[in-house]
Amino acid sequence: MRVQADSPTADVLVIGAGVVGLAIAWRAAQRGLRVTLADPSPGQGATHVAAGMLAPLAEASYAERELFRLGIESLRRYPGFAAELTELTGLPTGLRQTGTLQVAYDGDDLAVLEEARQLQESFGWPARRLTARECRQAEPMLDPAVRGGLLAENDGSVDPRLLTAALLSACQQAGARLVREPAAEILTAPPRGGTTPLDPPAPPAAAETVTGARLADGSVLSAPQVVLAAGWQSAALAGLGQTLPLRPVKGQILRLRPARRPASMPPSLLARTVRGLVRGSSVYLVPRADGELVVGATQEELGPDTTVTAGGVWELLRDARLLIPGITEFELAQAQAGLRPGTPDNAPAIGPGAQPGLVLATGHFRGGVLLAPVTADMVADYLVSGHLPELAAPFAPERFWRGGAGPGPGTARPAGQRA
Amino acid sequence: MRVQADSPTADVLVIGAGVVGLAIAWRAAQRGLRVTLADPSPGQGATHVAAGMLAPLAEASYAERELFRLGIESLRRYPGFAAELTELTGLPTGLRQTGTLQVAYDGDDLAVLEEARQLQESFGWPARRLTARECRQAEPMLDPAVRGGLLAENDGSVDPRLLTAALLSACQQAGARLVREPAAEILTAPPRGGTTPLDPPAPPAAAETVTGARLADGSVLSAPQVVLAAGWQSAALAGLGQTLPLRPVKGQILRLRPARRPASMPPSLLARTVRGLVRGSSVYLVPRADGELVVGATQEELGPDTTVTAGGVWELLRDARLLIPGITEFELAQAQAGLRPGTPDNAPAIGPGAQPGLVLATGHFRGGVLLAPVTADMVADYLVSGHLPELAAPFAPERFWRGGAGPGPGTARPAGQRA
Repeated sequence: MRVQADSPTADVLVIGAGVVGLAIAWRAAQRGLRVTLADPSPGQGATHVAAGMLAPLAEASYAERELFRLGIESLRRYPGFAAELTELTGLPTGLRQTGTLQVAYDGDDLAVLEEARQLQESFGWPARRLTARECRQAEPMLDPAVRGGLLAENDGSVDPRLLTAALLSACQQAGARLVREPAAEILTAPPRGGTTPLDPPAPPAAAETVTGARLADGSVLSAPQVVLAAGWQSAALAGLGQTLPLRPVKGQILRLRPARRPASMPPSLLARTVRGLVRGSSVYLVPRADGELVVGATQEELGPDTTVTAGGVWELLRDARLLIPGITEFELAQAQAGLRPGTPDNAPAIGPGAQPGLVLATGHFRGGVLLAPVTADMVADYLVSGHLPELAAPFAPERFWRGGAGPGPGTARPAGQRA
Repeated sequence: MRVQADSPTADVLVIGAGVVGLAIAWRAAQRGLRVTLADPSPGQGATHVAAGMLAPLAEASYAERELFRLGIESLRRYPGFAAELTELTGLPTGLRQTGTLQVAYDGDDLAVLEEARQLQESFGWPARRLTARECRQAEPMLDPAVRGGLLAENDGSVDPRLLTAALLSACQQAGARLVREPAAEILTAPPRGGTTPLDPPAPPAAAETVTGARLADGSVLSAPQVVLAAGWQSAALAGLGQTLPLRPVKGQILRLRPARRPASMPPSLLARTVRGLVRGSSVYLVPRADGELVVGATQEELGPDTTVTAGGVWELLRDARLLIPGITEFELAQAQAGLRPGTPDNAPAIGPGAQPGLVLATGHFRGGVLLAPVTADMVADYLVSGHLPELAAPFAPERFWRGGAGPGPGTARPAGQRA
């Protein structure tokens, strides 16, 4: 659909107000841009369900060195990001910088953990090896069966629900406008001669320039730049110019709360995030300051299904109980399922889309909370300067429609100059 | 507290509108009595959480022969009770008369099941022994590990939430009045000379005659007869004249719903209630017509605690999965905890209380839904005639304050004549 947008209502329209979209809107508004955010229920998607681990080491996997580097960089920025948010809004983010302890339940699990350590070493960031005894010294509530572990001392966690509330407040303070409506279609118009130099030349499908978006209620928000940060639903928008290979990856997650705490139990069951390999199955427990424990997460490819299942809950409780028997008497306060935005190479799409004026910031899969600060900084810079740092190059969205089949992030690509 | 009640607002005040109180109110109103029901939230206590098994055989235990007989008699009355309710109100009760299959998961469980069969035989009602193959023929979704079972063909189940709704409607049709307020105190006055012949003579504490009850909001409901059917909370009322040894026994229970049903799966996972012994642990699965499965229940002595715990849910899912692996993909739609009214001998208190005019119908423990029809018939008869049938004798409440320590239901006691 073509719409002439002679009087844009904003400089930037951000579609999607999860942790990534909110962080971008905030950073863009701080840079003086007039920002509009469109989301029917801000912070209620994958962000709302996320545990909030900041654990690039524990999340590292082969063939994802660039993603690991991006995670390390975002983790480095988190303390400043969180402190600035709290200073501006007076709201907490739940940031804890207490590290991650990865543990192995049996001998086979220990062998897998040793492989993880070797990978971390090859990335130049090995976690510290702990014996079984050292694991229990670090986390006395661990089951005596635990065989050993890895301590990543620089890891942390945030409470994504607190973070979202703080970001929303910061966005409002910075002048961003929130429209509680889903976007339906990216709007375009023929490019104006000479005003939008493109490098490399736009493909035929991108001959049109983005002018804003039409919302589900039919209204139009005009903006010369549109940031698409709507998680797995980003691909469903009309007018993208190219197909985005995003899919929902279901994750079930539990929130446990101390119910009746025996006097013998410490005020918080865990000092830090504990990730376990339990007979080949992965589980994590993320403690909050108030004693809540977030236990996650399944990883299921079932389309847009958010059913909490008997099997999913059983599996999480089984593994968590084996690691930390003390959770037995905890209240099962919440069981939920979220949909992570998965991509073919598990890496996000950050950078220009298929049409001039369209910027993508989606596909963060399991890393949306961790990667929000660095994504927001890079995208906000791009919105004002037309430049992306080298760090962003492997995540250029065009890897999904140029050259096609490559399963890993592509090589660096010069960012297009923007007017 | 003494209140003169010269113009009683009802003939009978029923305190508590769970399945037992509602059934009594309905039956009493049908007999022409003016009935008032007091309950802040009808049907929302233990009844709301109950699975609704009608399984006196499977529930039978040693030293509870009289309770077993009462259960068998109530089960016999259920089809008529449910049919009458549905005919009067047009509402379903979810009654299913499809039997109970008790199964054993391993050899030790099978030995325990054989003991149960011998007990049933000693009561004159043995269930039918099934081989492992016969169990799977009866319930094809059973895990192949199941070693054998017992089939109680006359057992059934109701949906307690439907039953409550139907009973509420029937009560209203029959003219009973509902007051949504908890009762705080039983009110009494000195007996009027000659109007209340008592046999046996009233103890000193019962020198006063019941005149009604004061509610939590301070208002007074006057009635010459008060039925106390408030479950485990019955004992908390002031003015009872004697201490009722009731305690809350926590039960956690799950409701599973078919989420994505593969074409290979039958419309309902189970044809009948399946009760399992799984490595010494008990679990039951009660199917509803719409495919819902109710999985229960823990039995915990923790006071008035209704926390759903990680350990409770895990245990139920663990045992249910071992018996019926197909539940894995079911939605975990609800996890709740209810408080059953437990007594020292696991049997209810049905009959006159410590003060003339007070009638008890509480302490039904795990059997409230099963025992509601027979309890209601007996209590309603007593309210109009002053007589209780022989069947009720072992459940006379006075066993708790006369002779004291006896752990089983006492011997028959002639019912007092009432004016």
